[in-house]
Amino acid sequence: MGGPPQFVGWVEAGYESRMQVDGKPTRTIWVESDGTCVGIVDQTLLPHRFAVARLKTLVDAARAIQTMQIRGAPLIGAAAAYGMWLAMREDASDEGLERARASLLATRPTAVNLRWALDEMLAALRNRPRGERAAAALQRANEIAEQDIANNRAIGRHGLKIIADIAARKHGKCVNVLTHCNAGWLATVDVGTATAPIYTAHDEGIALHVYADETRPRNQGASLTAWELGQHGVPHTVIPDNTGGHLMQHGMVDLVIVGADRVTAQGDVCNKIGTYLKALAARDNRVPFYVALPSPTIDFMLSDGVAEIPIEQRAAAEVACMTGKTADGRIETVQVVPDGSPVANYGFDVTPARLVTGLITERGVIEPTRAALAAAFPERLATR
Amino acid sequence: MGGPPQFVGWVEAGYESRMQVDGKPTRTIWVESDGTCVGIVDQTLLPHRFAVARLKTLVDAARAIQTMQIRGAPLIGAAAAYGMWLAMREDASDEGLERARASLLATRPTAVNLRWALDEMLAALRNRPRGERAAAALQRANEIAEQDIANNRAIGRHGLKIIADIAARKHGKCVNVLTHCNAGWLATVDVGTATAPIYTAHDEGIALHVYADETRPRNQGASLTAWELGQHGVPHTVIPDNTGGHLMQHGMVDLVIVGADRVTAQGDVCNKIGTYLKALAARDNRVPFYVALPSPTIDFMLSDGVAEIPIEQRAAAEVACMTGKTADGRIETVQVVPDGSPVANYGFDVTPARLVTGLITERGVIEPTRAALAAAFPERLATR
Repeated sequence: MGGPPQFVGWVEAGYESRMQVDGKPTRTIWVESDGTCVGIVDQTLLPHRFAVARLKTLVDAARAIQTMQIRGAPLIGAAAAYGMWLAMREDASDEGLERARASLLATRPTAVNLRWALDEMLAALRNRPRGERAAAALQRANEIAEQDIANNRAIGRHGLKIIADIAARKHGKCVNVLTHCNAGWLATVDVGTATAPIYTAHDEGIALHVYADETRPRNQGASLTAWELGQHGVPHTVIPDNTGGHLMQHGMVDLVIVGADRVTAQGDVCNKIGTYLKALAARDNRVPFYVALPSPTIDFMLSDGVAEIPIEQRAAAEVACMTGKTADGRIETVQVVPDGSPVANYGFDVTPARLVTGLITERGVIEPTRAALAAAFPERLATR
Repeated sequence: MGGPPQFVGWVEAGYESRMQVDGKPTRTIWVESDGTCVGIVDQTLLPHRFAVARLKTLVDAARAIQTMQIRGAPLIGAAAAYGMWLAMREDASDEGLERARASLLATRPTAVNLRWALDEMLAALRNRPRGERAAAALQRANEIAEQDIANNRAIGRHGLKIIADIAARKHGKCVNVLTHCNAGWLATVDVGTATAPIYTAHDEGIALHVYADETRPRNQGASLTAWELGQHGVPHTVIPDNTGGHLMQHGMVDLVIVGADRVTAQGDVCNKIGTYLKALAARDNRVPFYVALPSPTIDFMLSDGVAEIPIEQRAAAEVACMTGKTADGRIETVQVVPDGSPVANYGFDVTPARLVTGLITERGVIEPTRAALAAAFPERLATR
């Protein structure tokens, strides 16, 4: 503490950023340079419009998470941390602290990074005088954001080795990676989790190509992953979610890398709905299946992911309708199910640890077992 | 032969039809009552508009199959047969016969019913005087259409027993069936293949509910299966293609029934892309996985489905764009991938026989093995 908080926007201040939009370094979340609010990339408008939104209050932050203007487990964590800062400016009392935590925790049930970040913020603020809480919240939120980027860079370095080994076995022929949903820089503060090894390998000059699952119902693979890969110049192809099994049967996928919303103490992986199906296809075709995640995504309180992780159910409209660009450039939403047909919208599924080749974390590639996870993160076990 | 061909429309003539649209008995293909042309339900406009199209020439018929105004392996077979009738009216020479066969065969590469129906037509027409060919073609096409319906009714009876057994084990509690794509009455002349046991069980008063996979990229599950289940009053829920694995992990699916575009002599099943992923999930969760098919879908010339069946690749626009209804009732097409992102569009995948519980055919439920298929259809083996 001490000294004024750093009220600078990352973009404007030229902070280092891995990702670029139209050639300009960009992060997904930042403090505006006048220090009045938090800026975010509004992900609901991509890929057809790149727009920035501003969060000024706790309510703004909670709504942005709930409506998925910002999404992705690590970014949700950072956004919740900044939401606590906005809340402390409004009401720094103990009641205000508790209310802010409860309101942010209620936005999304599945990603554990949200709870982790709120616990971190609570620990940083609880025993502090009210007058210091806003500044302390901003500092801790900035640290959480920077830590996310550092974690992702480390994931990129560890994952690079996996891709480089495959490239060597293929004698430099293009490495085909399949990914599901968006675990890219848009799902984090920067760099991404599943994309970190991809961007790192691409930047190292390894020839690779990414199959991006469309990821219905919200199409994050088509609208976010394909878009950010394109911005970074990574060769890629968008495929329907149904396609991965066929590609794997025909030797067209060398490895799968996905992100995670929650990983249990025994290595079960909760991620975007449909991940489990790709893990089954990878196993059936002996394709390595990796999950990239920063350690805040691990929930040491849970063991059996299928039985214990709460699976978010979201609005029917996400399945019943799709939004896109018309031939003349308008953004339209169209209904794609019959009038009156009910729909179900489960946000996530759980891939059992037995189907996972390895967990790519900031501390290296870890076997998806209780023992290996405990050995890699002993301090997390201690605070269980 | 002998006597005038029966130039009657099925709908107008009150032919028996299992399916109803807005309470009116309807088939997917028929000869118009004035005998001048073939009428079809234009499936590209469903579920938002029910419209009929008329095929007057060979070119009309080939285009209707290629653009998927009519689709589904059994219906493609019947449509090709009627296409041969239209062709014989235009040019009944041997050259005309060969040209019509080649042009129809080229429309879709994967479904074997197309080749089967064309071979049947060729056998019926080849050694006949030109003057008789048109009438003979119409008669054989009508027989092929009627045979499809008879096959599907038999599939319904055999499949009913499977559903009834599960209903009995569940003490009458609702049986949950998952299906992929549309193997319903819209994929056949009437009744459907995968839906035949469903409609039969529903009509017998068995409580059941269907999860209909949306089936990207063309959404036949949402736009066709959900629509026809709705027309018939069968309780159902549309789910994204990603969802089935999660449902099976949680005991929410009692059995899977899908259709097929081609089944090999050893029981490998080629069906709409994504079927293989559901079969893997069914196996992983011990959910029975059945394939319903009429025998013309069996290709005794092929063994290894993954290696030997040609997989159709279709236009990028089917993945890149989606068509639906706007809030004010207009039909719009919107682009759902970023500008410049390539897409891949494989129409089918192959589910190895080892993942299939049984093949529901017009001759009963058959084990997916070479021996069982040969024993059930000895006459097909003989003509190999």
